[in-house]
Amino acid sequence: MRVTVHRKAHFNAAHRLYNKSWDDSKNEATFGKCNNPYYHGHNYELITSVTGEIDPETGYVMDMKVLKDIIKEEVEDPFDHKNLNEQVEDFFELNPTAENIAVVIWNKIKKRLGDKFELEITLYETPRNFVTYKGE
Amino acid sequence: MRVTVHRKAHFNAAHRLYNKSWDDSKNEATFGKCNNPYYHGHNYELITSVTGEIDPETGYVMDMKVLKDIIKEEVEDPFDHKNLNEQVEDFFELNPTAENIAVVIWNKIKKRLGDKFELEITLYETPRNFVTYKGE
Amino acid sequence: MRVTVHRKAHFNAAHRLYNKSWDDSKNEATFGKCNNPYYHGHNYELITSVTGEIDPETGYVMDMKVLKDIIKEEVEDPFDHKNLNEQVEDFFELNPTAENIAVVIWNKIKKRLGDKFELEITLYETPRNFVTYKGE
Amino acid sequence: MRVTVHRKAHFNAAHRLYNKSWDDSKNEATFGKCNNPYYHGHNYELITSVTGEIDPETGYVMDMKVLKDIIKEEVEDPFDHKNLNEQVEDFFELNPTAENIAVVIWNKIKKRLGDKFELEITLYETPRNFVTYKGE
Amino acid sequence: MRVTVHRKAHFNAAHRLYNKSWDDSKNEATFGKCNNPYYHGHNYELITSVTGEIDPETGYVMDMKVLKDIIKEEVEDPFDHKNLNEQVEDFFELNPTAENIAVVIWNKIKKRLGDKFELEITLYETPRNFVTYKGE
Amino acid sequence: MRVTVHRKAHFNAAHRLYNKSWDDSKNEATFGKCNNPYYHGHNYELITSVTGEIDPETGYVMDMKVLKDIIKEEVEDPFDHKNLNEQVEDFFELNPTAENIAVVIWNKIKKRLGDKFELEITLYETPRNFVTYKGE
Repeated sequence: MRVTVHRKAHFNAAHRLYNKSWDDSKNEATFGKCNNPYYHGHNYELITSVTGEIDPETGYVMDMKVLKDIIKEEVEDPFDHKNLNEQVEDFFELNPTAENIAVVIWNKIKKRLGDKFELEITLYETPRNFVTYKGE
Repeated sequence: MRVTVHRKAHFNAAHRLYNKSWDDSKNEATFGKCNNPYYHGHNYELITSVTGEIDPETGYVMDMKVLKDIIKEEVEDPFDHKNLNEQVEDFFELNPTAENIAVVIWNKIKKRLGDKFELEITLYETPRNFVTYKGE
Repeated sequence: MRVTVHRKAHFNAAHRLYNKSWDDSKNEATFGKCNNPYYHGHNYELITSVTGEIDPETGYVMDMKVLKDIIKEEVEDPFDHKNLNEQVEDFFELNPTAENIAVVIWNKIKKRLGDKFELEITLYETPRNFVTYKGE
Repeated sequence: MRVTVHRKAHFNAAHRLYNKSWDDSKNEATFGKCNNPYYHGHNYELITSVTGEIDPETGYVMDMKVLKDIIKEEVEDPFDHKNLNEQVEDFFELNPTAENIAVVIWNKIKKRLGDKFELEITLYETPRNFVTYKGE
Repeated sequence: MRVTVHRKAHFNAAHRLYNKSWDDSKNEATFGKCNNPYYHGHNYELITSVTGEIDPETGYVMDMKVLKDIIKEEVEDPFDHKNLNEQVEDFFELNPTAENIAVVIWNKIKKRLGDKFELEITLYETPRNFVTYKGE
Repeated sequence: MRVTVHRKAHFNAAHRLYNKSWDDSKNEATFGKCNNPYYHGHNYELITSVTGEIDPETGYVMDMKVLKDIIKEEVEDPFDHKNLNEQVEDFFELNPTAENIAVVIWNKIKKRLGDKFELEITLYETPRNFVTYKGE
């Protein structure tokens, strides 16, 4: 019996959107207000969804305390109250769109879970805009 | 890397449920309070989910401002503050159940997106009743 | 010890906003889309808040099952899946704005509670627009 | 046209997590606070998702009133305000983790729906922890 | 300038409602399903609201990290994953209704805040039932 | 009949907390992660609550479209996607805590409403931390 367990977490961060290889007017035309060089920010809400078999001894797919700690170490500690462009190495060369942040988070957490589990990441940039990525 | 981007929108509308080819008692038996000939209404909450490849130059699956405008033109402008049965041509011959409204919205938005993207529509008729359709 | 107990309920209804003593163009100018003669509708979410002393024997301000039944009889049964303008007598001569609906609901429930309790009504017309009335 | 219809419901229950074949210290090490022998409890929020063809006569995948009654009979009546370990037979020999509760609910509702429909169960144990099961 | 700062927290607990000085049939008649002798439970959501002057040096009414720690020590640590009737001394002789729990929490937190601040406690027993108490 | 009408709005912004007249170590000790010199950010959710008499002709306390425009001009346009410390003059000399932002917004909107209405501002910095200010 394969079940998916979901855990919510959150972090607050500043970012701006731009492509270093473009000039200012192309960045402005493409990213609009999100290109503000002084940054803006979000309360990111994260749902980490792990699919696997129920362990018949525990009744768990995985111990949620273990998953909670992985999310804390891989996402909350390095991202929370940070400037993603300036202080998080993953985004020094990668535009921190919600899409790219979700892929980065998926890669970090997948490495910790191993091949036994499938993983899906849902990231809310605002309550009205969110993305999902499952490693495909 | 295929990511799904989701955008929330909303519209308020009146409707009633009935099948024109049935008599009143069958409509009443089938649709109950929803068959009220004076109409009732809902705050419809819509989630439009578009799946595609991340563009490596922008970090976007698609520009959410473009998606927001498509939703406005195809759904919000024609449906908001309208009587679906009486004022929205799509429902002159089609019962405006949540299921049918979702299919109509899917068809309208899919036409604008083209074949490059997969589309899923989630429509909340109330916070307790909602439907999803992905064109299958 | 005075405590306020709150109970959520909901109903779906159609309505339109207009003033019978005005001509069409003044109604249109004032109420815009809400003046649509074919009606539109909402999922109204209602919070009924009752303030009183804790009964030392029960630990209750009032039995929430009693309050739930009062709300059902006074609001949900007469308003749910109705056209407020056409089918609810309270609004035959009163414009069914969120403000006026809240006052009507307050009057109906207050009559049932008696003088022992204070009452406040919160009515969400949409998740973004809501009103409160406490009989002042 | 295959559409998924979703219906929300809820129930409150007490439970504790433990494996009868383990000693106390292993149960404590594995389940921590959730192993409290005096029980703790949750407001479980349930989303029942049924996928099928739209009936062209009604515009429904299935009548939501029928689904609502099935959920009431199979889940709300037997589980609400109960101690899952002590009063719900399904959990006399099965650890009432969110995963196992979701599988039990899936089995109960699937039996009522028959083969015409696919079913997915989403069960929130808290607003931050939830699971999904679709019979795979 | 007096501002109110609000902080959300939560705890899960089991409880039952009954009055020790009443017989079973009176308890059953008064508290219904909530009187289940095997207990049931809730995810309690708590909003702690503190009103005071803005400190012109910090721009804070009070440091939210200090408030967060007070809530953890006074409420989350002693109440979370507990049976309120059996394991929390405050309810050995007091019926753990939402009203009484809110008063107990108010007393515990008020003692820590001192006279400089006003306090209001909002406690959700379920998303549909909640209470507020401000020490009056 | 005095009713309060509430309108939700939102803006995303970057900020940092610090007191210019303090040295780095005191700022760090007081504001912790919020003092990050590279900024962090939030999705601010704003509830603007206006209390006044119901106009018997319209059934409105005030036209919500007018209130929506005032919020857009006074708050959303100048604050959204901005760095509050660097780009919003109100915070050049004032620490942008949630408390201070709420007071600034209250002052801006109150000026537009005039003496006929009472005003309360509720500002969510995160879903777990929020403040209210009513000009007292």
